[in-house]
Amino acid sequence: MRIVIVGGVAGGMSCAARARRLDESAEIVVLERGAHVSFANCGLPYFVGGEITDERALLVQTPESLRSALALDVRPRNDVIAVDADARTVTVRTDDGLEQISYDALVLSPGASAFVPPIPGVDSPRVRTLRSVEDAIALRDKVTGGARRAVVLGAGFIGVEAAEALAAQGLEVSVVELAPQPLPPVEPELAWLVSEELRALGIDLHVGVAATAIQHGPDADTVVLADGSELAADLIVMSVGVRPDTAVFEEAGVACERGAMIVDSHGRTSIPGIWAVGDATLSVDPITGTRRPVALAGPANRAGRLVADDIVRPGTAREIPQPVGTAIVRVGSLTAALTGANRATLDASGVTYRTLHLHANQHAGYFPGASQIHLIVHVAPGTGRILGAQAVGTEGVDKRIDVLATAIRSGLTVDELIDLDLAYSPPYGQAKDAVNLTGMVGENVLNGTLDLWYAQDLDEVLDTALVLDVRRRDEWVTGHLPGALHIPHTELRERIDEVRERAEGRPVRVMCASGVRSAIAHRLLAQSGMDSASLSGGMLTLRATLGARAAHMLATEAVVQGG
Amino acid sequence: MRIVIVGGVAGGMSCAARARRLDESAEIVVLERGAHVSFANCGLPYFVGGEITDERALLVQTPESLRSALALDVRPRNDVIAVDADARTVTVRTDDGLEQISYDALVLSPGASAFVPPIPGVDSPRVRTLRSVEDAIALRDKVTGGARRAVVLGAGFIGVEAAEALAAQGLEVSVVELAPQPLPPVEPELAWLVSEELRALGIDLHVGVAATAIQHGPDADTVVLADGSELAADLIVMSVGVRPDTAVFEEAGVACERGAMIVDSHGRTSIPGIWAVGDATLSVDPITGTRRPVALAGPANRAGRLVADDIVRPGTAREIPQPVGTAIVRVGSLTAALTGANRATLDASGVTYRTLHLHANQHAGYFPGASQIHLIVHVAPGTGRILGAQAVGTEGVDKRIDVLATAIRSGLTVDELIDLDLAYSPPYGQAKDAVNLTGMVGENVLNGTLDLWYAQDLDEVLDTALVLDVRRRDEWVTGHLPGALHIPHTELRERIDEVRERAEGRPVRVMCASGVRSAIAHRLLAQSGMDSASLSGGMLTLRATLGARAAHMLATEAVVQGG
Repeated sequence: MRIVIVGGVAGGMSCAARARRLDESAEIVVLERGAHVSFANCGLPYFVGGEITDERALLVQTPESLRSALALDVRPRNDVIAVDADARTVTVRTDDGLEQISYDALVLSPGASAFVPPIPGVDSPRVRTLRSVEDAIALRDKVTGGARRAVVLGAGFIGVEAAEALAAQGLEVSVVELAPQPLPPVEPELAWLVSEELRALGIDLHVGVAATAIQHGPDADTVVLADGSELAADLIVMSVGVRPDTAVFEEAGVACERGAMIVDSHGRTSIPGIWAVGDATLSVDPITGTRRPVALAGPANRAGRLVADDIVRPGTAREIPQPVGTAIVRVGSLTAALTGANRATLDASGVTYRTLHLHANQHAGYFPGASQIHLIVHVAPGTGRILGAQAVGTEGVDKRIDVLATAIRSGLTVDELIDLDLAYSPPYGQAKDAVNLTGMVGENVLNGTLDLWYAQDLDEVLDTALVLDVRRRDEWVTGHLPGALHIPHTELRERIDEVRERAEGRPVRVMCASGVRSAIAHRLLAQSGMDSASLSGGMLTLRATLGARAAHMLATEAVVQGG
Repeated sequence: MRIVIVGGVAGGMSCAARARRLDESAEIVVLERGAHVSFANCGLPYFVGGEITDERALLVQTPESLRSALALDVRPRNDVIAVDADARTVTVRTDDGLEQISYDALVLSPGASAFVPPIPGVDSPRVRTLRSVEDAIALRDKVTGGARRAVVLGAGFIGVEAAEALAAQGLEVSVVELAPQPLPPVEPELAWLVSEELRALGIDLHVGVAATAIQHGPDADTVVLADGSELAADLIVMSVGVRPDTAVFEEAGVACERGAMIVDSHGRTSIPGIWAVGDATLSVDPITGTRRPVALAGPANRAGRLVADDIVRPGTAREIPQPVGTAIVRVGSLTAALTGANRATLDASGVTYRTLHLHANQHAGYFPGASQIHLIVHVAPGTGRILGAQAVGTEGVDKRIDVLATAIRSGLTVDELIDLDLAYSPPYGQAKDAVNLTGMVGENVLNGTLDLWYAQDLDEVLDTALVLDVRRRDEWVTGHLPGALHIPHTELRERIDEVRERAEGRPVRVMCASGVRSAIAHRLLAQSGMDSASLSGGMLTLRATLGARAAHMLATEAVVQGG
């Protein structure tokens, strides 16, 4: 049997290696358009930034190592330009001309290429993408060759990594993002923390604005933005998104949707004998049921492995799991990570949800180095199912997101998070870990023990309710909502009549710094019969939601009469 | 309603706080024998070691803070000396004499006290335990007061933490452990790494030996061991175990088993109106079904919270989850952690299992700072259920154990670990995370794609099989098994006839450094019809299993004819 695999990175290479381990007799040919196979895609920004110094470190495997270890026939610079599904052949362009290769099984893992938007001047030689080892080397050469000013177009995960890498090399870096924030899949109240961190890294951030032209100059290009700004650039990194590399296969008859290949739960395309995996395929979102491409290495590797099973051991392979979609990025001293669905995805799919905000220490507060993880979890109100989670912080973010990704994959409900036996010792966690606390808050919300209000509804709350701020006086004076009543939570039992008087029949909307004390106060008010709710995430989430508005919105003691 | 809670740490305090949040009208009295409530039990060794400098940091709450925030009536130095279950009263010894307090609901959270074995001389004033803030202050006073030599009796989690803390303060520290290794619940091949780390910290380790006497001297005590060793000590820390503090309650009629209180799934004892939580209760091991006490803060807190639910909202509380038992300890630059059952527990319960050993990088190998996590996972051969996991390494151990603890709690099978969408970016993990790899190895083992052999069966293997070492020559020369055939895995396809000849009909037992290359070689041999198996965990696990024997067992190129 001859298995031909198109694409020698991630999914394709996982498929090839697994096929060999299962079948010593198969002929396995890997055709890779680029110069390298099995390279460290995700490591490219760190090579540009200088943390990875030797480009050889990016080459995880070579054709030679794959031949000697696994008897794979790996052919770089082999570009598949046509597929004849009836004849079961592919046509390949090589340095030596065209070649026809027949196959018994064909696995398509072409990946996605960087999308280059059709803006005037985008053909400048100063414009680069960051998808290949060659790209990374070219960028690094520009950096060491004296580039001083870089503009990164697109502040997705790779754009943010590229911007930080270039800043780390001493360049003046501007980032331009069409969405109103960096890392568009991240909820705005967490993305605000990322914006602040990028600014702290000295990166000039332009959000909510498009680049409209790139003007070529003798010494530098100028990136022109829709708001009229002009950014001089010795170097422009294009990272606005990717497009599946499927034209050849769609032409051959492989069914696609918006350019991505449609596959069944075993990775089979619409054509018998042809499988597909990775960034160029569609997969079903297990949370919303919608189909979308997922450009992540993990799901690609898994699919490649299971396609090999399906080819070599037909009828016995497990189904390819529906990817939950977990992603993580380092931004300066912060980590931002997410798993499952976000608000936008849930809203678009009509899934109802409640959102929980927590700010919990990554380890015992009394142990040196404690720092907060800012955590958002969306849960289904009826079932308690966990729909998605996001976190930003300096330490322990990856752990909590991985635990929550595991919980989502396992179908745990939010109250079951209380029961997770997470490893506790002061350097590693808290006896009630952030994930356990999420479960407690979620259980309280779903069974009506806790009512929440949200920072995004602030304007309505200010119009219709009494805001009760239960923080200490030293917290209150640093900034509070106009018109709020201030009673520290420790005095609330004695002063509860003041609340009733000031409320004058309006609902009471309680807040503190993070949501812990306001939840206690809420219980007290609710038990004495008041319409009360606690601000989800407290002042920390409120400030991040207000973003730049916070400075104008929040009064300090000097200018406003408080409690 | 008056709720009386005996014990103001962990489970007791969680119960009190939850009861208040649910019921503003209840009278809640917390009786604590010691001087402090809600103190940072797990932080005590770090106070002794100087990482936590201010003793106030250990006092998470005070009676005053609990009164003002939650209207709790918290009474330190209140020792419950009798319970009259018929009259629903407890008798309390206070500084002012005896007092009777009636209750509607009584919650027992007395915890466990340090076991002091009856060895001669154990009444020396130089002997201390490490269970209370007073203990920690006393130890620190001795350290700052000029103690130079410490002996720690018992190398469990607290013993190891105490030993490291004292060594960090510059003392000469000896540790004496009856079991043949430190951290007895940890599998020996991982505990060996901990032993080496303790030695690297300059700690003098005596394992497999009992202390038989403590001789009092004018300037120092002498700890005498069963092997005749004598250890001079200015300070002796007793950490050989704990005993539930239940005598008073057993006397009152609460049903106990080996001194620990028996409770149902709502924390109810055998006596109506009396609940119990924490270290002094028995809970069911969800893996083996056996009942045992679990001395961990997390399960105690959870139980306390759910007991409050059961008292305040009878009939609606969720059942208290059966604790999986997850624990973690920092030892020098290492972290050791475990969750679920270990070999000893499984053997004692007659549960059959297969063991997987992995050595996987905590993050991408090409990213700076990559280091190995040494991972052991036990799985049920029939169902693939994950029974237990342990890990040792310098980074990322807590994350993998938390993910595996979540998987165990969720009832995932080992092959489902492949499908976990764990956050990947080079600083945080690998595209195939250690946990995903565990799933792949487990699936292969359970469906017969991979046969394993174990280092603990080495003697039998050397007698009956051909050992085939497929490492590179530069690895081979640094130490290999006597009589092994050496063929690097990249040459195995061409030299497979050599294996058949040398095997002379014997099984072939393959090995490499960590088990990856030997698994590939195994597939090659198995597909060519040989009885083959791959060494679980490779040379890394073999060395750790042999421990001190390794130096004698393993030949180097100079003395043995290899391949």
